[in-house]
Amino acid sequence: MRRYVLTITCPDRVGIVAAVTGLIAGHGGSVLEAAQHGDLQTGRFFLRIEIVADSLPAGFGPQELARALEPVAAEFAMEWHLSDTDERKRVVLLASREDHCVADLLYRWRADELECDIPCVISNHEDLRGMVEWHGVNFRCVPVGPEPAAKQAAFEEIEGIVEHERADVIVLARYMQILPPAFCTSRPGRIINIHHSFLPSFAGAKPYHQAFERGVKLIGATCHYVTAELDEGPIIEQDTRRIDHGDSVEELQRVGRDVERTVLARGLRWHLEDRVLLNGNTTVVFP
Amino acid sequence: MRRYVLTITCPDRVGIVAAVTGLIAGHGGSVLEAAQHGDLQTGRFFLRIEIVADSLPAGFGPQELARALEPVAAEFAMEWHLSDTDERKRVVLLASREDHCVADLLYRWRADELECDIPCVISNHEDLRGMVEWHGVNFRCVPVGPEPAAKQAAFEEIEGIVEHERADVIVLARYMQILPPAFCTSRPGRIINIHHSFLPSFAGAKPYHQAFERGVKLIGATCHYVTAELDEGPIIEQDTRRIDHGDSVEELQRVGRDVERTVLARGLRWHLEDRVLLNGNTTVVFP
Amino acid sequence: MRRYVLTITCPDRVGIVAAVTGLIAGHGGSVLEAAQHGDLQTGRFFLRIEIVADSLPAGFGPQELARALEPVAAEFAMEWHLSDTDERKRVVLLASREDHCVADLLYRWRADELECDIPCVISNHEDLRGMVEWHGVNFRCVPVGPEPAAKQAAFEEIEGIVEHERADVIVLARYMQILPPAFCTSRPGRIINIHHSFLPSFAGAKPYHQAFERGVKLIGATCHYVTAELDEGPIIEQDTRRIDHGDSVEELQRVGRDVERTVLARGLRWHLEDRVLLNGNTTVVFP
Amino acid sequence: MRRYVLTITCPDRVGIVAAVTGLIAGHGGSVLEAAQHGDLQTGRFFLRIEIVADSLPAGFGPQELARALEPVAAEFAMEWHLSDTDERKRVVLLASREDHCVADLLYRWRADELECDIPCVISNHEDLRGMVEWHGVNFRCVPVGPEPAAKQAAFEEIEGIVEHERADVIVLARYMQILPPAFCTSRPGRIINIHHSFLPSFAGAKPYHQAFERGVKLIGATCHYVTAELDEGPIIEQDTRRIDHGDSVEELQRVGRDVERTVLARGLRWHLEDRVLLNGNTTVVFP
Repeated sequence: MRRYVLTITCPDRVGIVAAVTGLIAGHGGSVLEAAQHGDLQTGRFFLRIEIVADSLPAGFGPQELARALEPVAAEFAMEWHLSDTDERKRVVLLASREDHCVADLLYRWRADELECDIPCVISNHEDLRGMVEWHGVNFRCVPVGPEPAAKQAAFEEIEGIVEHERADVIVLARYMQILPPAFCTSRPGRIINIHHSFLPSFAGAKPYHQAFERGVKLIGATCHYVTAELDEGPIIEQDTRRIDHGDSVEELQRVGRDVERTVLARGLRWHLEDRVLLNGNTTVVFP
Repeated sequence: MRRYVLTITCPDRVGIVAAVTGLIAGHGGSVLEAAQHGDLQTGRFFLRIEIVADSLPAGFGPQELARALEPVAAEFAMEWHLSDTDERKRVVLLASREDHCVADLLYRWRADELECDIPCVISNHEDLRGMVEWHGVNFRCVPVGPEPAAKQAAFEEIEGIVEHERADVIVLARYMQILPPAFCTSRPGRIINIHHSFLPSFAGAKPYHQAFERGVKLIGATCHYVTAELDEGPIIEQDTRRIDHGDSVEELQRVGRDVERTVLARGLRWHLEDRVLLNGNTTVVFP
Repeated sequence: MRRYVLTITCPDRVGIVAAVTGLIAGHGGSVLEAAQHGDLQTGRFFLRIEIVADSLPAGFGPQELARALEPVAAEFAMEWHLSDTDERKRVVLLASREDHCVADLLYRWRADELECDIPCVISNHEDLRGMVEWHGVNFRCVPVGPEPAAKQAAFEEIEGIVEHERADVIVLARYMQILPPAFCTSRPGRIINIHHSFLPSFAGAKPYHQAFERGVKLIGATCHYVTAELDEGPIIEQDTRRIDHGDSVEELQRVGRDVERTVLARGLRWHLEDRVLLNGNTTVVFP
Repeated sequence: MRRYVLTITCPDRVGIVAAVTGLIAGHGGSVLEAAQHGDLQTGRFFLRIEIVADSLPAGFGPQELARALEPVAAEFAMEWHLSDTDERKRVVLLASREDHCVADLLYRWRADELECDIPCVISNHEDLRGMVEWHGVNFRCVPVGPEPAAKQAAFEEIEGIVEHERADVIVLARYMQILPPAFCTSRPGRIINIHHSFLPSFAGAKPYHQAFERGVKLIGATCHYVTAELDEGPIIEQDTRRIDHGDSVEELQRVGRDVERTVLARGLRWHLEDRVLLNGNTTVVFP
């Protein structure tokens, strides 16, 4: 069923929901789902509304709806976004050698659990080519050399691919290279990473080794938006699994792969359905 | 902060939220929290709105708000309810010998986790008197004899106490007697039970023994509204805990007590905050 | 690292562990892992010991170890089994149209999370052929007709394949046909099924529809050994996931697929590593 | 049922279990439960055995058993400990104003979930006196002044009480003072703290505020042994609970109290049953 998804962020005050739902109802629009949140600390208001496309009059499509919303948006100083579920978001995956996250996302995509197009997977290694291509997805290998110039060239090539593919979202599916800060800052809320620890614990490298050394009793994974500061971006989703003293680092990694892929898949699905709204360095998630 | 909580159930159609929020905004009412759900199978719509009392004009209290809502309610064929957080709900607990649920609820009540008054605890045994009275709560012992006449007399006495105390909610906190059907049917959505299994598994007596015999790997608890059919009422909340082959029935009971009390406390809190709406034999919960 | 895995079930009495570990130590055997359980109800004792193969003298392999164990086994009336991790178990998967469990098991198998050989996948439909063959696994389509004679012929063919492939374990990875009772009873503890509910809740057909109707707040999955009585065999592993009133049957199925595949993968891995011992209609699991 | 619990730590080598179980079996000792772990990194071995007291000959009590073990212990360079379940451990609780952990532990103690004696609760405030004394436990108020001399005097008084009460274990049940390093280092593995975060995340003060600021999607609690380095001691148990953007700091605290008390109760119970063995700065837990 085709839906328009409207997400709004604005200063909280009386009458926002009445104005928006009044406008939608005035055009006969049927609301499938709606959720809202007022942040008492910052005074920001967050709203997500899913409208059944066919309930609006013929000829009243997303552009007309957007135009009708403009005066309301101006009145309430809204930042807003309108998605059309018929316009699937375009997702480019970046990966390295480990395949569990990529394989899981491609599986879910083929199983229609993720409403998006995946035009290509980019990796700095060749390992995943067979698996990716079997799913019918274009595979691009962009090795990243150790020297600054080689790095820069590689990321220019990646940026070129991303632009060419008109990616709406970039997913770092266990991509082991650090993105240039400018690449991140120019795409706020559009790059999603999966970190293999329960952040802020064990930020940085080798989190399972750190977890093993510290003797924690649960391990976790964190799906977050990427900012210029490594492992510090707004968290979308997290989860944990129980381990015990008998688990080696390799067993933590095995258990961890399961958490990573479910947390990443959940976070990405919510993002694709416009269920994640940025609130400073945190997120509002309407699952 | 004083709030009015409005809950609405009605046939789903265009304009419900616009009408209700428009009315509230028209009186300057500030919405603290709102949640909605449309059931696609039954075509029923569910809405819960929390309004900041002080945001409404002086002299525009719950009665005035209710009166203002009447035409809208009539137009949309709403079943609706308006709660005032200044009018705390009155909760009567029924218990037998086991104390973990009663002790937990009384602890939370004293710790201000449950916004309600608890005028009394009724039990068919004397065991809990000391603990209940230490919490400053009235304890009433109503033994229930085995013969029909004795049973009937006991439940007439209980009904008398419940009426005298003007109970809004009755909580069966591991009460081991079966209520008369008429007692249940006359209080739909107002009697809450905690069953010590993950229903519908192990309905009836001795669920931990049943779970042990069947060799399940998780046990659970279920908080539900009581209907005339035992263990068949609408489920409010459930949870599970992991067990293993080494756990005896006694250990299942120990682990189970923890699940029971957290599940009951959560279900009761949601009920007290008008977060649970009946939808046939299921519930809509806005946590 | 090559290991011998010894599993023992016998009447509980003094000296079992001393006798077994004494024998192993007497040959210089190094124990990597050991776990035991005494069932106080039945008086049965369960033991699992993992021995480092290289720690035993040259020429003292599994046969010699088995022979050395015989007098001890006779003394204590042991049922016992000795596995050699160099002899990988052979697993045949049975599936129908749904691919999530098969895809997950094949992924884990290729990722070396499951120590076994998978000689073939049998299905009553052609749908999974491409995916299975891409993993380098033989795919056999055995349609099952509705009439008794056709059914019998199909299961004779399946039995033939299973025998030909010398399967140690048969996994019903969402296989939608009911196996003939004789097929089950002749393979106790060797056929593993994944049921898409938290048994004993919602046994039988369409468990997610049943769960939706009942309005439960968690759904689950159960991995169990197959016996002649449908959905009644010994449970190996279970898990649950939270859902809410907003989830349709389709969403229960989506969430459920994730539980099903993790529960099945966990159960199968434990079985392959000889961590699951039968105890009447329940299991002892040494994870 | 009276049991002797033997815990052993020693360098791993062939024959440890055979020697210990052989000795026990040689005296007719019946083993109720046993668990072991070999740490491949450090080469240390850990063993816990529960022996039914009555299965040993008359006159062969804990002292005799200990004496019989000495040669084996010497041969394998064992650090070992023998507990008698008839000798209940003595637990002193330290608390401040928050009552949820103390109330929970005292409830469980009265419900026979914790096998120990609790001779007294020490607090730097008077708030908990009524609740503690109602449970029949001695309450000692030792205020801790801000100046070094006052602090020192307070901790000397506390140390005096602890010695006088012959405490085997000290539990910091949300005690808001920092213990002097010497107090900690002289009691390795004998002081248990509950920290209200999922360590190593949010060590230090106000972890729920930190968690709120960072926007994590789960909060947790950590039960650990206290060392001279704050929040850095060996972790005994941890757990997490899901939260969302709608939860205020106060709601994190409410949810957190439930995690704190279950994690602390579990950790303390395992400690009392000698299920926790120190392994450097981590623990081996045989639950």
